[in-house]
Amino acid sequence: MKAEIISIGTELLLGTILNTNSALLSQRLAGLGIDVYHHITVGDNPSRLNEAIRRSLSRSDIVITTGGLGPTVDDITTETIATLAGKNLILNKVVIKDLRDYFKLRKLEPPPDCARQAYIPEGAKWIRNAVGTAPGLIMEYGGKTIIALPGPPRELGPMFERDIIPYLKTRFESSWTIKSHTIKTTGLAESQVNHLVKAILKLEPPTTVGIYAKLGEVDLRIMTKAKDKRSADKAIIAIEKKIRLKLRGYIFGYDDETLEEAVAKSLIKERKTIAVAESCTGGFLSSRLTNVSGSSRYFVMSVIAYSNASKVNILGVSESDIDKHGAVSRDVAIQMAKGIKRLACVDIGIGITGIAGPGGGTKNKPVGLVYIALVSCRKTLVREIRFRGSREEIKFQASQVALDLLRRTIRQLPS
Amino acid sequence: MKAEIISIGTELLLGTILNTNSALLSQRLAGLGIDVYHHITVGDNPSRLNEAIRRSLSRSDIVITTGGLGPTVDDITTETIATLAGKNLILNKVVIKDLRDYFKLRKLEPPPDCARQAYIPEGAKWIRNAVGTAPGLIMEYGGKTIIALPGPPRELGPMFERDIIPYLKTRFESSWTIKSHTIKTTGLAESQVNHLVKAILKLEPPTTVGIYAKLGEVDLRIMTKAKDKRSADKAIIAIEKKIRLKLRGYIFGYDDETLEEAVAKSLIKERKTIAVAESCTGGFLSSRLTNVSGSSRYFVMSVIAYSNASKVNILGVSESDIDKHGAVSRDVAIQMAKGIKRLACVDIGIGITGIAGPGGGTKNKPVGLVYIALVSCRKTLVREIRFRGSREEIKFQASQVALDLLRRTIRQLPS
Repeated sequence: MKAEIISIGTELLLGTILNTNSALLSQRLAGLGIDVYHHITVGDNPSRLNEAIRRSLSRSDIVITTGGLGPTVDDITTETIATLAGKNLILNKVVIKDLRDYFKLRKLEPPPDCARQAYIPEGAKWIRNAVGTAPGLIMEYGGKTIIALPGPPRELGPMFERDIIPYLKTRFESSWTIKSHTIKTTGLAESQVNHLVKAILKLEPPTTVGIYAKLGEVDLRIMTKAKDKRSADKAIIAIEKKIRLKLRGYIFGYDDETLEEAVAKSLIKERKTIAVAESCTGGFLSSRLTNVSGSSRYFVMSVIAYSNASKVNILGVSESDIDKHGAVSRDVAIQMAKGIKRLACVDIGIGITGIAGPGGGTKNKPVGLVYIALVSCRKTLVREIRFRGSREEIKFQASQVALDLLRRTIRQLPS
Repeated sequence: MKAEIISIGTELLLGTILNTNSALLSQRLAGLGIDVYHHITVGDNPSRLNEAIRRSLSRSDIVITTGGLGPTVDDITTETIATLAGKNLILNKVVIKDLRDYFKLRKLEPPPDCARQAYIPEGAKWIRNAVGTAPGLIMEYGGKTIIALPGPPRELGPMFERDIIPYLKTRFESSWTIKSHTIKTTGLAESQVNHLVKAILKLEPPTTVGIYAKLGEVDLRIMTKAKDKRSADKAIIAIEKKIRLKLRGYIFGYDDETLEEAVAKSLIKERKTIAVAESCTGGFLSSRLTNVSGSSRYFVMSVIAYSNASKVNILGVSESDIDKHGAVSRDVAIQMAKGIKRLACVDIGIGITGIAGPGGGTKNKPVGLVYIALVSCRKTLVREIRFRGSREEIKFQASQVALDLLRRTIRQLPS
């Protein structure tokens, strides 16, 4: 079973709004075992919309449109679908009453054009909009199904969940299950991961593995299609095992788990506490560590020591070492980590100092140079890294390396 | 002049990532007066990509593809374009050297497959990737132009700005100018802004105004199309004036300016310094304040005082007041602000304490309750607010209110 999604709206083509509907619908359709091979976006133009729907119908079993169901003359979806199918538009009395009630309830004057939304193509099923005024449509045409949904995500979402998913399930449920499972790594470049799991990336359907690189993270997504949930799980577990053998040590989590959540889990399990002294990351690492609910169980405090005075006065960094080595140096990172560990009385102290740019770089200390120190009862670790990217990207990557260092250290500490 | 955008990637069709590239490219193309009538998304499938490019070339002058330029076997764009145009792929020595330098600089072993990215279709122009390894491509074919850009937004963005825009300008500049201008507000709900500028929102083309609500921010975007830049600017300025009259005091910036940049500008102009004591926001406010390059001119330090002990020992919050009023209270927020102001010797101290959730709420102190205090030489301000949303949304909104408080205060301080 194949579906495609046609998004309608000149604003999408002007780039003034982001197309989140296509992503949402695609996720849900994949969950139902319905394949999506195309997303199309067209403007509020009847002839281009007509052409797009015709083409989609020629390739797919289900065509879902989003947008263009409003009350204004710009809203062309219902008319275009009716024209294409050779159907008349008929004023629907239930919809008209719905619309009147909508405005009455909100003590608003109904706009003069509002009745436009109550014209439904002959033979189509209309779907009540629980949030706004535009009804959705389901129409069977030439053995195919056209589904028209409103454009605003807060109207489309509930309508799709409540009415369209049950409809698709009854009508198209495939005996196939599509499952995906994501393995998340950090510490390796995409090309390195690619090299390590090369053979696995060449797998052919029904079970395939894709590689997805983000900043400071490379994910592997296993996708499988099987006759039932159990076979799907079995196929995924078999591949996961192979990947884990290849990427041992670099995997921090699975599916929706974030690196900070993985670190939090280990800290709580090992009953360790941490504190952070940040300079160039400006609080970003602390913010990530505290994005996890319940972080007060392991996170005690941070000092964002931007000025040299705060490094010296609060964290006890040696002023002469700052003079000698510079504020961005291995020594200062270690002293920051030691200082915050002492100040907060914690098991692990982290110190970060660097140049986030775009200004402030020199030949010897270029933008992107960051020192990350971790001090525990057992050892002192320091990493010197040269990141690339914007200021925010450098902050992110530095926090990523710090979290990874933390993740690797926690497991090795004595309980 | 017409362009269309083809996004390539199975993960887009699975809905696992959002298509932000199409929006960015569309915005920029509109600015050049180039019309975009279609966005297409296809997966990592050569025959569907081939078909999509052919169809787009039949309708438009310029076809821009994004994605599928990586080093793996899934990356099919270059090969598909070469096949379609009947061109050979030729190993480019400059690109190969670039790739080697990329890995050398990062002290990484180049993966054996990495040379794949150095094969360029005969006759195509390649574009250096300043951030990653995949070069972009520009190819003239049958009187049309195909431009292939890498998929990751952080690679695509800089390449498009630096190399593609100048290329398009020279080759295709149109006599029409489409201009947009965004007015950014905070402190009002969407419905309040909507009510205040109702009449302006009803404007008809060529100059229209749209309203776009985000978390803690409502933007108004003026769009206009005119014969030349001057007429477009004139139309925009006239509307902007009207909007400013209606929303005086709530506007913090224009176009790409962020709230933290607006605050930074004022702090630098007024030569004021700040320091922050955060609890529930966990460093997020400090991170936003230091996202601005040159923030060391006004930002001195922060303490993220998560534990009560750190509030008492480092910031000097009264232990008995914590016992009496609770750590989440007006008194503690003020004492945190005063404590950090004293500790850092700055003009303005900010204290934030609250319950970011989802756990930790009680009947009297529910999740989302946040106290934000600002202490300057002149006055002490406190806001008690109940935010709604996820943990990260509550952190964001609290930082937004703190920045807005800061923005409104700075201008009133004596120099």
